[in-house]
Amino acid sequence: MSQTSRPRAAVILAAGKGTRMKSSLPKVMHPVGGRPMVDWSIDLARRAGCSQIVVVAHPSQGLLIEHIASLPGDIPVAFQDPPMGTGHAVKCAADALSGFQGDLVVLYGDSPLVPADAIEELFASLEEGAAVGVLGFATHEPGLYGRLITSGHGQLEAIVEAREATPEQLLVTLCNSGVMAAGAEDMFRLLEKVTNDNAKGEYYLTDLVGLARAEGRRCQAVRCAEEDMIGCDSKADLAEAEAIFQARCRKQALEDGVTLIAPETVYFSYDTVIEHDVVVEPNVVFGPGVTVKSGAQIRAFSHLEGATIGPYASVGPFARLRPGAVLDEAAFVGNFVEVKNVHMAEGAKASHLSYLGDGEVGAGANIGAGTIFCNYDGFFKYRTTIGEGAFIGSNSALVAPVTIGEGAIVGSGSVITKDVEAGALAVARGRQVERKGWATAFREKMTARKAAKKKG
Amino acid sequence: MSQTSRPRAAVILAAGKGTRMKSSLPKVMHPVGGRPMVDWSIDLARRAGCSQIVVVAHPSQGLLIEHIASLPGDIPVAFQDPPMGTGHAVKCAADALSGFQGDLVVLYGDSPLVPADAIEELFASLEEGAAVGVLGFATHEPGLYGRLITSGHGQLEAIVEAREATPEQLLVTLCNSGVMAAGAEDMFRLLEKVTNDNAKGEYYLTDLVGLARAEGRRCQAVRCAEEDMIGCDSKADLAEAEAIFQARCRKQALEDGVTLIAPETVYFSYDTVIEHDVVVEPNVVFGPGVTVKSGAQIRAFSHLEGATIGPYASVGPFARLRPGAVLDEAAFVGNFVEVKNVHMAEGAKASHLSYLGDGEVGAGANIGAGTIFCNYDGFFKYRTTIGEGAFIGSNSALVAPVTIGEGAIVGSGSVITKDVEAGALAVARGRQVERKGWATAFREKMTARKAAKKKG
Amino acid sequence: MSQTSRPRAAVILAAGKGTRMKSSLPKVMHPVGGRPMVDWSIDLARRAGCSQIVVVAHPSQGLLIEHIASLPGDIPVAFQDPPMGTGHAVKCAADALSGFQGDLVVLYGDSPLVPADAIEELFASLEEGAAVGVLGFATHEPGLYGRLITSGHGQLEAIVEAREATPEQLLVTLCNSGVMAAGAEDMFRLLEKVTNDNAKGEYYLTDLVGLARAEGRRCQAVRCAEEDMIGCDSKADLAEAEAIFQARCRKQALEDGVTLIAPETVYFSYDTVIEHDVVVEPNVVFGPGVTVKSGAQIRAFSHLEGATIGPYASVGPFARLRPGAVLDEAAFVGNFVEVKNVHMAEGAKASHLSYLGDGEVGAGANIGAGTIFCNYDGFFKYRTTIGEGAFIGSNSALVAPVTIGEGAIVGSGSVITKDVEAGALAVARGRQVERKGWATAFREKMTARKAAKKKG
Repeated sequence: MSQTSRPRAAVILAAGKGTRMKSSLPKVMHPVGGRPMVDWSIDLARRAGCSQIVVVAHPSQGLLIEHIASLPGDIPVAFQDPPMGTGHAVKCAADALSGFQGDLVVLYGDSPLVPADAIEELFASLEEGAAVGVLGFATHEPGLYGRLITSGHGQLEAIVEAREATPEQLLVTLCNSGVMAAGAEDMFRLLEKVTNDNAKGEYYLTDLVGLARAEGRRCQAVRCAEEDMIGCDSKADLAEAEAIFQARCRKQALEDGVTLIAPETVYFSYDTVIEHDVVVEPNVVFGPGVTVKSGAQIRAFSHLEGATIGPYASVGPFARLRPGAVLDEAAFVGNFVEVKNVHMAEGAKASHLSYLGDGEVGAGANIGAGTIFCNYDGFFKYRTTIGEGAFIGSNSALVAPVTIGEGAIVGSGSVITKDVEAGALAVARGRQVERKGWATAFREKMTARKAAKKKG
Repeated sequence: MSQTSRPRAAVILAAGKGTRMKSSLPKVMHPVGGRPMVDWSIDLARRAGCSQIVVVAHPSQGLLIEHIASLPGDIPVAFQDPPMGTGHAVKCAADALSGFQGDLVVLYGDSPLVPADAIEELFASLEEGAAVGVLGFATHEPGLYGRLITSGHGQLEAIVEAREATPEQLLVTLCNSGVMAAGAEDMFRLLEKVTNDNAKGEYYLTDLVGLARAEGRRCQAVRCAEEDMIGCDSKADLAEAEAIFQARCRKQALEDGVTLIAPETVYFSYDTVIEHDVVVEPNVVFGPGVTVKSGAQIRAFSHLEGATIGPYASVGPFARLRPGAVLDEAAFVGNFVEVKNVHMAEGAKASHLSYLGDGEVGAGANIGAGTIFCNYDGFFKYRTTIGEGAFIGSNSALVAPVTIGEGAIVGSGSVITKDVEAGALAVARGRQVERKGWATAFREKMTARKAAKKKG
Repeated sequence: MSQTSRPRAAVILAAGKGTRMKSSLPKVMHPVGGRPMVDWSIDLARRAGCSQIVVVAHPSQGLLIEHIASLPGDIPVAFQDPPMGTGHAVKCAADALSGFQGDLVVLYGDSPLVPADAIEELFASLEEGAAVGVLGFATHEPGLYGRLITSGHGQLEAIVEAREATPEQLLVTLCNSGVMAAGAEDMFRLLEKVTNDNAKGEYYLTDLVGLARAEGRRCQAVRCAEEDMIGCDSKADLAEAEAIFQARCRKQALEDGVTLIAPETVYFSYDTVIEHDVVVEPNVVFGPGVTVKSGAQIRAFSHLEGATIGPYASVGPFARLRPGAVLDEAAFVGNFVEVKNVHMAEGAKASHLSYLGDGEVGAGANIGAGTIFCNYDGFFKYRTTIGEGAFIGSNSALVAPVTIGEGAIVGSGSVITKDVEAGALAVARGRQVERKGWATAFREKMTARKAAKKKG
């Protein structure tokens, strides 16, 4: 956003039923890149410098309304009921924007990939004197899209519906995305003139262009890629948008110097941060909230969410890191290990078949195979604290709350319920008893029983 | 199948050696979508209303013959030995069909993707008076395929081998799939006239068309897509058929309202049932026999076979469900958990690193991390029963047969060999003993030994 | 290599900084197919019969220099500092090749996919009288590549830089790969004549062709595919080379009779050996050093490195085999099982959630779910030996060094620290104690506490 720009606001249209999604989840709540589509639009508005944002929803969309209320910043929800077209939808936001003086962009809650610089360009066109700015996309198959009829320098003369277009106009490949910006005053004033005198009986936002032109005002078309403008009405659309998003993330990661052995098998979230010189093996899923520092490696078949991976740390294969997993430098989480809300200090290791939940593992501590942090009693969660350099023997259960002192050793197969002093050995297991010949006798008895069963 | 149709039968040709498969498994036993190819053809015949089905095999194909015998319904195997062409193969089925009066379709055991409506259309053409119906596919690269020479409305004049075709005929893109239907009487009567007077000395089914035309009878071509007609002679063909099958399943699932975040990483079986509003994360394999109810989620890296997932249940990431796993509403199976032949009632949870085999988990029961159902003694399998609301502490082993009563608690790290009463606490583990300073001394001793080893 | 060929040597240029990799790892150390790129070039040289190989590096590339020193065979590293072009780089290898009499090929450390037969052809062209042989590749987009101007039979007249080419020459699609061969004497003699009289002030190897032609000598172009000549300067290039390599491996495996259900999800290494009639399910990663014998199956989500899988053995799903895992015929490693440096004899089984490290499992032995070989005490590693037919009850910890005798049984949940005699039963666990009503009381108390917390 340029420093001198006028105040900006956004109206995000999200009241559509989305019946083609075949879902009880409101359409715009479906995620792309791990984030609900409507959040992409809100984020877009913010990145384009909008200080006020209004979401237009239908009163029946409880989950959406709750979600918007839970977001940081104050985002009012305006209701559109019943829906009577995009123009009507924007008008529904008028009250929420009363007193706002500046420029207004209309965005859609189901278009997660619109680039911020295109919106910036729309606003800039207003600041340069246009009454209305419209985002268009060029496509090889314009089909039924409305065409943007332009003269030199993107000056927009009209938006023509495909069914009303002349053969010559049908050859135009720049199409109306529906994203439109105008001064707030212009927008609401012109919207009053929009009629529903059309086949569907709806009020179309698109009509603003004709109305502005009729007043002799200048309109401006801004162009972006078709891929950017994908709108998601169905699960197939969603999957397509996700695929575009993932392809972009992969390309960017490679450019940033991340080694992706099989880029097509790595899945990113909207906020994944991976530094250069990280190696990511095939089949890794980055859920939201992951940061991986330079020199770390994420091995095959790993699943990370809300985790921070320090430099030269190693994760996987077959590791699951959940929110609050923090691995310091050179920490190691190996196969079939789950870590949740645990801080592993420098060089701490949990190499095999363990569950580490709610705790602290000191620097250089070694967690043996099959170790379980018993953090839950059915009612509350408790913390396990393991001191620097401690060694937890394999197949141990640490019943939290519990503290293992620095350099202490826990014998294999122990169930530790009481704190262990630094430098001590703790063992909590049965004594080994042997019955000679028992197995041989048992085997004979069972073999006979099995034979009898087969006969009988 | 129309209600008024004539009796229908199918002959499935499966005697081919399939040497290009480089496999000891008979060619038609190789699976696509988790089902042997020959079963696809049998299923196709059934869906097209065939009341009698004969599989033509080679006597050396023991595994195939056994497999056919094991299938429900009575499917006779006719032997072709030695193989002398497709016409000869069909004749080998004559005895098995003696007494059958109706229409007969010839299918192939290595063509798993033929659509039932195409076969229905073939039968319909016979009922409308055609002597022979032939399934053709249109292709951009007809190459060496036999061409179907048709006049108006798909009337089939001749099948011309590529090497005998005129330049004009070579331009025809409708090719012979080999799938052919005729009245049983016509078929076997005409087959008697087929000669092996050709380069390979074989009896070709294809000749039926010329023979029928020579009698002045009408023949009919039915058209389907090239992709539908893929025949699998090699592992590469198999992989291609599998890819087509998977692409169709993914498309259908999206249309049905299933959320597939990365459709290209989800693998279905022939009988997978997934309801709308199920979320499937990347990298999920559905083996045969899986049903997932609406609202459930299948997280990344999960592998399911023979499992039923109730509404709002959650599986994975990294979960393995094996046959007999039944999850009721809102049940939860988490990472590194294997469930086999266990019914988990509503809201039951096994979140981490557990093996649940052969048993029953009551509603709301909580199975701690690292729990093992010890269901096998080397000879027999036994059941574990866990009551409603019970809580199994982490790292416990439940030695079946054993019953944990309603609301009972098992202490972490216990080995439970006897039943536990409802509402009781059971603990079976060693007492914790601590030796102060032991770890420090041990560490010193071992450090010295390590240093000595390095020197010496 | 033909039997009568002259001595052959290779110079591998590897001094490039590779800044576009954005990595602290030297460019040519980045792996493709699990092997550093420079090793591919060394292997290529060997397969083309080179008895002497020199790697030209920059003195700052410590990791590369160490790596080359660690390789078998004596491979001298020559230093180029500062870099002054490819011609200069080759001259830097002169000392290391002093006394060598024969033919010399110049290879690149960042081109892992060059086929050996193309190099063989280059050498053959020298033996047939050419002074210089140049490897060219045909491309649809020659762009800025130098063009190989040839007359009949691949006779090479000149290499013309794109910016100096005539419009007609720009139409040539055979481009200079940089790979070049000449007699060692010719090469070093002609290199003395190369000047740095060009825009970059560098000495170009390419100039050899013009110099040889000026002497009236014959030069020869050898053609290969563009894909073969991919050079990897960035992480994106690396990913592309990896994708080409994987596609070739998959195709080859299918041709060899391996069943790949989803070839696109299986990742091979440079030395993976898989026999015919092995079934590989989706999502399998073969790290370096894996051999799989006919009839074995590798199920979904498995990760293998340095492992040998015997005939009819079964691995996975979700199995991790690490170096030294050797599975004999019909051995079984199931889900969430890690095997490292363990020999599993015929029919031995570890089906669920186990860690087997450093040991021996006898034929037919059964390792129960959740078994851990405790092989490490923080200082040394020890071995676990399990006799033929032994049965290890679930959730047991075997504290190495330890031996379980033939046919012995270990009770579930035991911690075994002492050897167990053949045929004996060993149990080492706590006795089960029950406190009636305790769980009910606990639940009441905790429920009250939870309620209080919520209020307070």
